[in-house]
Amino acid sequence: MHFDAPLPLQSGALIRDYALSYETYGALNADKSNAVLVCHALNASHHVAGTYAGTAKSEGWWDNMIGPGKPLDTNRFFVIGVNNLGSCFGSTGPMHTNPDTGKVYGADFPVVTVEDWVNAQARLLDVLGIHKLAVVMGGSLGGMQALSWALQYPERVSHAVVIASAPNLTAENIAFNEVARRAIVTDPDFFGGNFYDQGVVPKRGLRIARMIGHITYLSDDVMNEKFGRQLRAAAQSLEGSALEGNTAQAAQYLYSTQDVEFQIESYLRYQGDKFAEYFDANTYLLITRALDYFDPARAFGADLSRALERASCKFLLVSFTTDWRFSPKRSRELVKALLDNKRRVSYAEIDAPHGHDAFLLDDARYHNVVRSYFDNVAKELA
Amino acid sequence: MHFDAPLPLQSGALIRDYALSYETYGALNADKSNAVLVCHALNASHHVAGTYAGTAKSEGWWDNMIGPGKPLDTNRFFVIGVNNLGSCFGSTGPMHTNPDTGKVYGADFPVVTVEDWVNAQARLLDVLGIHKLAVVMGGSLGGMQALSWALQYPERVSHAVVIASAPNLTAENIAFNEVARRAIVTDPDFFGGNFYDQGVVPKRGLRIARMIGHITYLSDDVMNEKFGRQLRAAAQSLEGSALEGNTAQAAQYLYSTQDVEFQIESYLRYQGDKFAEYFDANTYLLITRALDYFDPARAFGADLSRALERASCKFLLVSFTTDWRFSPKRSRELVKALLDNKRRVSYAEIDAPHGHDAFLLDDARYHNVVRSYFDNVAKELA
Repeated sequence: MHFDAPLPLQSGALIRDYALSYETYGALNADKSNAVLVCHALNASHHVAGTYAGTAKSEGWWDNMIGPGKPLDTNRFFVIGVNNLGSCFGSTGPMHTNPDTGKVYGADFPVVTVEDWVNAQARLLDVLGIHKLAVVMGGSLGGMQALSWALQYPERVSHAVVIASAPNLTAENIAFNEVARRAIVTDPDFFGGNFYDQGVVPKRGLRIARMIGHITYLSDDVMNEKFGRQLRAAAQSLEGSALEGNTAQAAQYLYSTQDVEFQIESYLRYQGDKFAEYFDANTYLLITRALDYFDPARAFGADLSRALERASCKFLLVSFTTDWRFSPKRSRELVKALLDNKRRVSYAEIDAPHGHDAFLLDDARYHNVVRSYFDNVAKELA
Repeated sequence: MHFDAPLPLQSGALIRDYALSYETYGALNADKSNAVLVCHALNASHHVAGTYAGTAKSEGWWDNMIGPGKPLDTNRFFVIGVNNLGSCFGSTGPMHTNPDTGKVYGADFPVVTVEDWVNAQARLLDVLGIHKLAVVMGGSLGGMQALSWALQYPERVSHAVVIASAPNLTAENIAFNEVARRAIVTDPDFFGGNFYDQGVVPKRGLRIARMIGHITYLSDDVMNEKFGRQLRAAAQSLEGSALEGNTAQAAQYLYSTQDVEFQIESYLRYQGDKFAEYFDANTYLLITRALDYFDPARAFGADLSRALERASCKFLLVSFTTDWRFSPKRSRELVKALLDNKRRVSYAEIDAPHGHDAFLLDDARYHNVVRSYFDNVAKELA
């Protein structure tokens, strides 16, 4: 969807002639009351569910959650996935041409915030003729968008489903983002963000950024369970095989500082290599910065209860016990602030071993919570 | 101290014509029974205590613990600090000349393990005429050396003091080490480890490595307390001022992906820059690998109790509640395995907010535990 009218951004900048990639699933009902907007996190897109015909491994990133008969049932709800501004999966981003200069944006793409994304999503809904969302839903950074919808457009949201999220990032979260950004920015192939016309990609930096990210998405427990101190597979063809677990394990240390010695190393290198093949470096900077900046309580002297007073919708919050990036404690802060305002909140703390990644995985208890919440939303609509 | 006889290493390699830098404090008593060996961790050296006359900021790295009247009282004990092989603070390391080739070792410096370091330290004690240590002591990687002393030379140790340590690294620990190593190794200025004759230093990689390290040394709590979400100082002269906290805080976001926005970023960049000025990249690889490899239970089918059966000395173990890099859980594994063997163990779990760094800080409860332990050792000697 192309937009001609400039979008004013929180930073004071404007972005004009932009486009948003989006997908929809299911059918909008006659009174347009069954729309669910699904917001994405760092490494995801508008393609939230389903597969592209004839394309292997093209499942949407939340395909276990969204689809016919799934917890978010597309037989009942009209689901919208939107790729955010600044991303590298279709919507206008740093790799596109700046209409003001005729040159690729690169590092000059304006800094976008969660609030900006929500404003852009609201414009898309305007064009789709949807005034009020039945539900806005997201995990992690997507959960921040869902929360921000409830604050920026309280009259346009009936329910917000905020999963594995937080009212803002802690210093440690910001620190991990900053190291990842420094790895990218100091990669000589970054060229100050204008690497596109140099014919290179700052892959070294992207690899490091992704490896750091992966460590923080997993729990210590699940890493120990999956990899422990197991050595590289004795057979050749190491890369990518770390998770399969059926290769013979090497018995002896190699005594090398640079070769893969432990399976966790093989796994991380593989993840880093894969990511560096497709993710845009400027997008990585923009999206991690949007995470850093999100802080609705900031304008209220860090008083989260006052900040959430504007929200009028009902809430479902979910957190996962081993998530140390967006810990249950942070979700409980949100629950408390909403209850301080006497809002209706359901909250589930799921005992899951998978760390932050759990919000993307198929866990029966978690999915049952979401399913029954949506069942109740559907009853309200009926 | 120079050693002519080659030292056989665990990898099967030999190192010859090597030297160990060491310092001693206090006086060795007549029967040579009051010697305490202090082993260092990643970023430290033989200079454990005291200052160098006329040199500002030259305090030893454990100066709050070791000295006259301090918990490890150099009026009573003869303290030895040794710089480990492969380090960059005086002992033979990657920046020195390989006698076999006449060229700088660089990446060809042999991989050294905790066990190798202990063997080298034992040779130093031989020359000093010390057959048996009253105490071997260390924190973190230094604690691994203390534990390994108890296993490799049970007849030469009366007490082992193992602080903020672990029987091996978890997958998550190895993962952080690996990301740091990849940042160094993929820095174009690393030149495969042979950067010395290129006139460059892989500072970009060292900075990233140090930033990652720093995050893991601190607790989430202490980071929030020290930095929280505070913005950069409004005044100029940011670098280094993050910790002072008396500069006016900026009120507005800059909306930049590359400039310092939060104080935690300023702090990490400063720490990274400082480290890259003096630490050797090959040493970083070697020392993190020694951490990865340490695993005394490995030869016993991961049965730590059987692995520790060889130890005959008495033990003091200390851990810190907010240390997520070497968590109390790991110290308790050691305590359990020692008790399984009916060894005498004292264990203190200190409630401290500072994460792994706590072992280097001046905490009254922690220091009192160590002080009273050494008081008892002194009584045994009397």
